[in-house]
Amino acid sequence: MPRNKGFVLASRPKGEANASNFRLIEQDVGEPGEGQVLVKHHYLSLDPYMRGRMDESKSYAASQKIDDVMIGGTVGEIVASKNPNFKVGDHVVDANGGWQLYKLSDGKSLNKIDTSRVPIQAFVGALGMPGVTAWYGLNKIIAPKKGETVVVSAATGAVGSIVGQLAKGKGARAVGIAGGPDKCKYATDELGYDVCVDHRAPDFAEKLKAALPDGVDGLFENVGGQPFALTTRRLNAFARIAICGLIASYEGKEKSSLEDVRVLLVNRAKIEGFIVSDHLALWPEALKELIELAATGKLKWKETVAQGLESAPEAFFGMLKGKNFGKQLVKLI
Amino acid sequence: MPRNKGFVLASRPKGEANASNFRLIEQDVGEPGEGQVLVKHHYLSLDPYMRGRMDESKSYAASQKIDDVMIGGTVGEIVASKNPNFKVGDHVVDANGGWQLYKLSDGKSLNKIDTSRVPIQAFVGALGMPGVTAWYGLNKIIAPKKGETVVVSAATGAVGSIVGQLAKGKGARAVGIAGGPDKCKYATDELGYDVCVDHRAPDFAEKLKAALPDGVDGLFENVGGQPFALTTRRLNAFARIAICGLIASYEGKEKSSLEDVRVLLVNRAKIEGFIVSDHLALWPEALKELIELAATGKLKWKETVAQGLESAPEAFFGMLKGKNFGKQLVKLI
Repeated sequence: MPRNKGFVLASRPKGEANASNFRLIEQDVGEPGEGQVLVKHHYLSLDPYMRGRMDESKSYAASQKIDDVMIGGTVGEIVASKNPNFKVGDHVVDANGGWQLYKLSDGKSLNKIDTSRVPIQAFVGALGMPGVTAWYGLNKIIAPKKGETVVVSAATGAVGSIVGQLAKGKGARAVGIAGGPDKCKYATDELGYDVCVDHRAPDFAEKLKAALPDGVDGLFENVGGQPFALTTRRLNAFARIAICGLIASYEGKEKSSLEDVRVLLVNRAKIEGFIVSDHLALWPEALKELIELAATGKLKWKETVAQGLESAPEAFFGMLKGKNFGKQLVKLI
Repeated sequence: MPRNKGFVLASRPKGEANASNFRLIEQDVGEPGEGQVLVKHHYLSLDPYMRGRMDESKSYAASQKIDDVMIGGTVGEIVASKNPNFKVGDHVVDANGGWQLYKLSDGKSLNKIDTSRVPIQAFVGALGMPGVTAWYGLNKIIAPKKGETVVVSAATGAVGSIVGQLAKGKGARAVGIAGGPDKCKYATDELGYDVCVDHRAPDFAEKLKAALPDGVDGLFENVGGQPFALTTRRLNAFARIAICGLIASYEGKEKSSLEDVRVLLVNRAKIEGFIVSDHLALWPEALKELIELAATGKLKWKETVAQGLESAPEAFFGMLKGKNFGKQLVKLI
């Protein structure tokens, strides 16, 4: 019988998360009971929202419980089945497979995936939660018109990279904000952003202003902090801001404030926070569009892959600091 | 020939507006030319938006021009007509009759009004721009469900008093914020608010908290400043905030900030600024509903009436400080 390994939440972070907040556990995986399957995970997805769950403070979902396996999306394959809906060899995505090698499941949280046209790990990235998040915020909140300017922070991240490409597909001008010249180069050369501004550059404020000669019609916000404050000073009439994440504020380091709400009144602008799991009904529509784009080479993404379950905590801390480039994965096999 | 008197903008305010910013002018009214009418104004409406127009800074509309008659809604009667659409004695509302006794008009900005069921001045108040503003923000942005809590700042003002009554009509719990015990008493005893909190009371923060045991689902914001900051700390999931005005910030005295945008993400909440003139297509629908409510005694309002054109500047300054109680009018005849 194979052994399962996983990380549980050992303690809640005070400020920055660190290794002491996680504990590695190991145990037998057990046999599937009637109606159950055993899933062997191939990839674990690491995402910024996990940091929010580690806190006790009110968030959009219940806190991660202490001593429970850390929440996390996974892709994998069925290796044993006593459930008629799944057979050995089926590939599946699990919105909460967790930070672990195996999972016994009743199948309710599993969705079968077709990996014949796209690699399996895309189903926790561009064709999974991050991709559908991008699709929802861009299409349902920002809804850009041709020629409008859409700003995307964390422009090369798992969500942002998809937002930029979808915005271009709608005929909008896409302006990325990313950390460092390599990411900015990738944003313009590979993802198709019209321009990308490096928020680590000393002249960031000037460069951002220069990148927005026609103001801002849409803002897809993944980061918050100072870039958010600067961008919201340049809103156009009827601007729409989708708040998807505020990673700059997650560890209490930098506040994300709207200094002067009058900018919303003057511009009749809208700011809306959202989380994709509130909109599951739209998932199939979004996924169909994203899979078609991906399978025909019209949707690109980059991955940063950490090798082995044990590397998950360090990879997670790095992602919170923007060290990853594109979708952060942990390869478990 | 009657003489026209009016106020023009003499200079832009630095900080608080004062008497030196206006200049009284007097001239012959002139005869209507072909296609024109002469309107004798009965009432001038004074509204907070006028303060924004006096500034040069970017606002939702062009600045009021120096030496032009001050912008302002009026109701009056046709006293001479060379336009087949209007006859002498017709009552009309003019979205920009201006701070003056008479106006020569080509009729394009005039709408005939039926004053048989409601008093004429209601058409610049509950049945005019303030009423339709209340209707739009409440129904199209907040859209309260039965049992939800809706907070209204400037709860007894021209807009707020209508918002509270419409919210109650939708089965929501209406919580008012107003300045002073008299306004608060009027809000609960006459307008039907479930509770009203006095923002001038020393224990305002505690009282507001106590008034919101189930949090905030909708906020109709007319004021901004500290009450806005305190109310937005108590948002529920999927809360909707309509930004109609930020009078606390208009003279540069108090900033209206959203301290932590994360509250929008955590609650998947929305903040939207609006101005009713962007939604003229909905005006007839709104007005029909409001007139019916008013004519059948289901919509109440209060008026503060200043007597005579010359009293307009002082009445305007008082309104910006919240000295009016209900709709601020100037009676011109």
